Amino acid sequence: MTDHPVLDKINKPNDIKKLNKAELPELAREIRNFITESVSKTGGHLSSNLGVVELTMALHLFLDLPKDKLIFDVGHQTYVHKILTGRKDFEHLRQKGGLSGFPKGSESDCDHFDTGHSSTALSVASGFVAARELKGEKNKVVAVVGDGALSGGMALEALNNIGKFKSNLIIILNDNEMSIDKNVGGMANYLGQIRTKKSYVNFKSGLEKVLDEIPGGSGEKIVGSMKHIKDSFKTFFVRGMLFEDFGITYIGPINGHDVGQVLTALESASRVDKPVLIHAITQKGRGYIPAEKRPGKFHGIGPFDLKTGKLLKKSATKTFTESFSEAMLELGDEDERILGITAAMEFGTGLREFGEAHPDRFFDVGIAEQHAVTFAAALAKSGFKPVVAIYSTFLQRSYDQILHDVCLTSLPVVFMIDRAGITGEDGETHQGIFDLSYLSHIPGLTVMAPKNCEELKEMLHFTLSLNSPVAIRYPKFGESEAAAGLDNSPIVYGKAERLEEGKDVAIFSVGHLADMGMELRDRLEKDGISASLYNARFITPIDTDSIKEAAFAHKVIVTLEENVKRGGFGEEVAEIIAENGLKVGFVNGALKDSFIEHGKRSELLKEYGPDTEEIYGKIRRIIG
Amino acid sequence: MTDHPVLDKINKPNDIKKLNKAELPELAREIRNFITESVSKTGGHLSSNLGVVELTMALHLFLDLPKDKLIFDVGHQTYVHKILTGRKDFEHLRQKGGLSGFPKGSESDCDHFDTGHSSTALSVASGFVAARELKGEKNKVVAVVGDGALSGGMALEALNNIGKFKSNLIIILNDNEMSIDKNVGGMANYLGQIRTKKSYVNFKSGLEKVLDEIPGGSGEKIVGSMKHIKDSFKTFFVRGMLFEDFGITYIGPINGHDVGQVLTALESASRVDKPVLIHAITQKGRGYIPAEKRPGKFHGIGPFDLKTGKLLKKSATKTFTESFSEAMLELGDEDERILGITAAMEFGTGLREFGEAHPDRFFDVGIAEQHAVTFAAALAKSGFKPVVAIYSTFLQRSYDQILHDVCLTSLPVVFMIDRAGITGEDGETHQGIFDLSYLSHIPGLTVMAPKNCEELKEMLHFTLSLNSPVAIRYPKFGESEAAAGLDNSPIVYGKAERLEEGKDVAIFSVGHLADMGMELRDRLEKDGISASLYNARFITPIDTDSIKEAAFAHKVIVTLEENVKRGGFGEEVAEIIAENGLKVGFVNGALKDSFIEHGKRSELLKEYGPDTEEIYGKIRRIIG
Repeated sequence: MTDHPVLDKINKPNDIKKLNKAELPELAREIRNFITESVSKTGGHLSSNLGVVELTMALHLFLDLPKDKLIFDVGHQTYVHKILTGRKDFEHLRQKGGLSGFPKGSESDCDHFDTGHSSTALSVASGFVAARELKGEKNKVVAVVGDGALSGGMALEALNNIGKFKSNLIIILNDNEMSIDKNVGGMANYLGQIRTKKSYVNFKSGLEKVLDEIPGGSGEKIVGSMKHIKDSFKTFFVRGMLFEDFGITYIGPINGHDVGQVLTALESASRVDKPVLIHAITQKGRGYIPAEKRPGKFHGIGPFDLKTGKLLKKSATKTFTESFSEAMLELGDEDERILGITAAMEFGTGLREFGEAHPDRFFDVGIAEQHAVTFAAALAKSGFKPVVAIYSTFLQRSYDQILHDVCLTSLPVVFMIDRAGITGEDGETHQGIFDLSYLSHIPGLTVMAPKNCEELKEMLHFTLSLNSPVAIRYPKFGESEAAAGLDNSPIVYGKAERLEEGKDVAIFSVGHLADMGMELRDRLEKDGISASLYNARFITPIDTDSIKEAAFAHKVIVTLEENVKRGGFGEEVAEIIAENGLKVGFVNGALKDSFIEHGKRSELLKEYGPDTEEIYGKIRRIIG
Repeated sequence: MTDHPVLDKINKPNDIKKLNKAELPELAREIRNFITESVSKTGGHLSSNLGVVELTMALHLFLDLPKDKLIFDVGHQTYVHKILTGRKDFEHLRQKGGLSGFPKGSESDCDHFDTGHSSTALSVASGFVAARELKGEKNKVVAVVGDGALSGGMALEALNNIGKFKSNLIIILNDNEMSIDKNVGGMANYLGQIRTKKSYVNFKSGLEKVLDEIPGGSGEKIVGSMKHIKDSFKTFFVRGMLFEDFGITYIGPINGHDVGQVLTALESASRVDKPVLIHAITQKGRGYIPAEKRPGKFHGIGPFDLKTGKLLKKSATKTFTESFSEAMLELGDEDERILGITAAMEFGTGLREFGEAHPDRFFDVGIAEQHAVTFAAALAKSGFKPVVAIYSTFLQRSYDQILHDVCLTSLPVVFMIDRAGITGEDGETHQGIFDLSYLSHIPGLTVMAPKNCEELKEMLHFTLSLNSPVAIRYPKFGESEAAAGLDNSPIVYGKAERLEEGKDVAIFSVGHLADMGMELRDRLEKDGISASLYNARFITPIDTDSIKEAAFAHKVIVTLEENVKRGGFGEEVAEIIAENGLKVGFVNGALKDSFIEHGKRSELLKEYGPDTEEIYGKIRRIIG
């Protein structure tokens, strides 16, 4: 690891204040090296953290932590904050027992609110300010929010409530290039008009002045990028109008990479007895050339070669995401009714290729999961087959829209739910362990899970034959060799697929846990216990007949699912057993009813289940 | 019923176009009489419908229905639309088998999208416009949205996406006095400033000119009311800035009670090849003096005396809402940490009295359920005890916030969930039949239900001893005499309460269904079958010990809950029975897994269960 003599002086909150002013640029450099080197080994969020080095330093110079409150929206950009509060054990970042990649109160009292999902910080800051007013206290409250997060409905709900405060609240709008995305590109008319406006021109020259101070030509680059502004929200900020009208004082734009300038803005802002927004322009990936060039690639990344920026290992196994991406391309050519809808995740969900092939049938609505779903509902009502691809954890935002706007009138929207089950290193806020529970009770929604990549494709094809809403959930990780090798029989609505026949135990596995089913079966076979293995395929409607038949023909029924127990598939099976008075042992192999921290999937499964050995033990206790 | 010769000529869509222009004012008058007389008999939404008579007439003159698409946000203001499409059987409005109080595609192809929850119409309209663009069709798309609905996050997400359309989309902003509520009153600074601005002054004189045309002095009244503008969104609309900047052309404000003016605006708007917003000022309750005076009271109302406006019968039984209201007043005096938070429902939830007694500890955030919950989370983190009162069906909007912002770090927010179970006449979109399913799998959330009003108070008191999140759900209807008469033993965390002791059947009832438990017990007793009755009290954590003990001591376990079966309390009990291999019969008395239309609660329970006779039959099949 590179030496970092100045960073070595930072070992607890507020240590940064003891440094000489002259040491600050060196500290910034060392933090960048430290983060880049660490993340190259452990993987993690890089671009966003390199973009907020000076911003976070200025915040730590300005605030008295933990007395003052600092909330980072989304929270993946808190590495610098962690370092400046003395949390420098980045060797174990995002590993079980190690530092979380997100703010975590249990790690430090300088992490004032745990975040992970987007657009929550303004509501949190509002609560802290209201509490301070009620208590008559004096602490500062600062929220750091990216421009992308402001398209989320709850951020806007908060903005509409924030202006009423009669005391100080500082919002830092961290405005970087990343949100300037082609997805909101339908506004050419509007932009042509806005660019000629005096306020915009004023802004541009003001910005150029600010950015001239940035050495090394980066300023010029940022100004260049501003020409491509395509986001209506951004355009508001440029003029500051939106905030001023909401009762929020606007300061900016300032250069977010100039500690002095940020500090001055913070000090000015804190003198105002009402909410103030500081508009700071930053550059994602700043200081590490490969990340500056491809900030998207380095947003969340696995271990990489520090010199070249190349990923050290690419997963050998095929991912469900890739399979979905291929299927969408195939379907898109076959059927003109197929549409692709994403909420700011065209890369992660694998919808990008479809979008490139069929730009008119592809919609990226920004971080706006609620709108995405109801927008899809109306398209379905109009005869289209919208495919909405949203991660399991983020789809939680759309629960009401799925129920009220899609399923109430049984509109044929297809939800492709990636990152279902344990997602690993991102931790609590990103595990996809609730979707079966929040979806399978919605009347009329078919909920499916594929055991391997090929079956995912077949399921997506299958949805075209249905004229009703469908959710298909699948994991982040690639299919296992065991699962990839399994045959896929034709899909029959509401029917499980029997993969293996046995006589003692009947295992019903949900989706990718077919591989665990195989493993469990092998384990039992060693003891002379023979097991049938069923791939559930349908969580709703559940295959009651197969379960009843299996109960008659076997001594024990086992369910396997990567979802919490409560409200999951196993409980549905228990209901069938109990209400029909079936005489059969039952082992529910679901995840414990708990939030699950960061770590490797294998480690987490061992602790939170389902775990082959534990289930094996339970079976043996029943059948001796 | 009053005669209505002009209205008699309206029997199917577009019939209004056959009328002479001179007949229109008479039609408006007749529609008002028709609606007022009908609603006085059946109950229903009055104020909002009286406010949109001319607006809806103009829309029907302008549009070619059902080819053109018309979407009403929320949807309780569609009575006029129903009448103009020939649906005039208002005798059975909101009754089982009769007309729904909301738009319903199954009733008419002129109801293009079923609504009920707020703030969805802009997303729906976006989908219809995108579909039209893809298909190259020519139909018009109009969304009618109240100003209150625009504080909802998903409406704002839609606005941020709407400007990109290159073809016409008309939004009618139906701006009435109702949204001008004291709840968003913390913006005095801002308003003082905005009123002096030229644009506002221009608006005011423009508005006065428009309103001068309204006969009878109502115009003056509206101008008067505008002086109390306290909503930042409204102020945007006043200037039209927000919409123009979003790429949406602004027309207004216009007098929404002048058919000609609305029609002219619609025709102008339709000539623009992009989204247009028409800002129409209307008056809720217009034309019926008691409703004009107290539009809130006549928003949703039971049968009333037409002459006096007085309610015909007030429920004799005490409601859970009243009980909550009293408890909040008591607690508010006792404990300064108690805060009350509502999302535009201070009356309905019963929080109003607390708000009057403790204005500084009461927050109405507008229709913004997501913000409400995360705002509460931060207040809880700061040492307060926020009590968030939101109806069961509307809390669906906050599922992610409850999970991610409150429960992930176990913050002591109390959710008071009114309108749980069947709510009756409002139908599908308003039934509170999913809350146990969407809440009880959230780790660390305690979910409770009181059997009677007194127990609700005790439960709320009990939450103060817990330092973790709690949800308490209770029904719209008053407690039954049977339930009111039951004693309340002290609450013990996670323990059910045994109300009656028997030996054959163990009944576990959830919340207010204790009365059904009593009824079932009596029914069984007639056959010489004796039943224990347990009041579950806790849905999570479930009282596993009592269930196991009951299973050992009885032949059958019965669960009763007013929630869908999937993910409900009964399934949790089934899980305990199946996984522990308990030898006991099981009858799950939950609601069918289905959406439930409008009708009387008693009728709906008969059809969708739980129903005493049906459960009785099942028990008899098990124990003969």
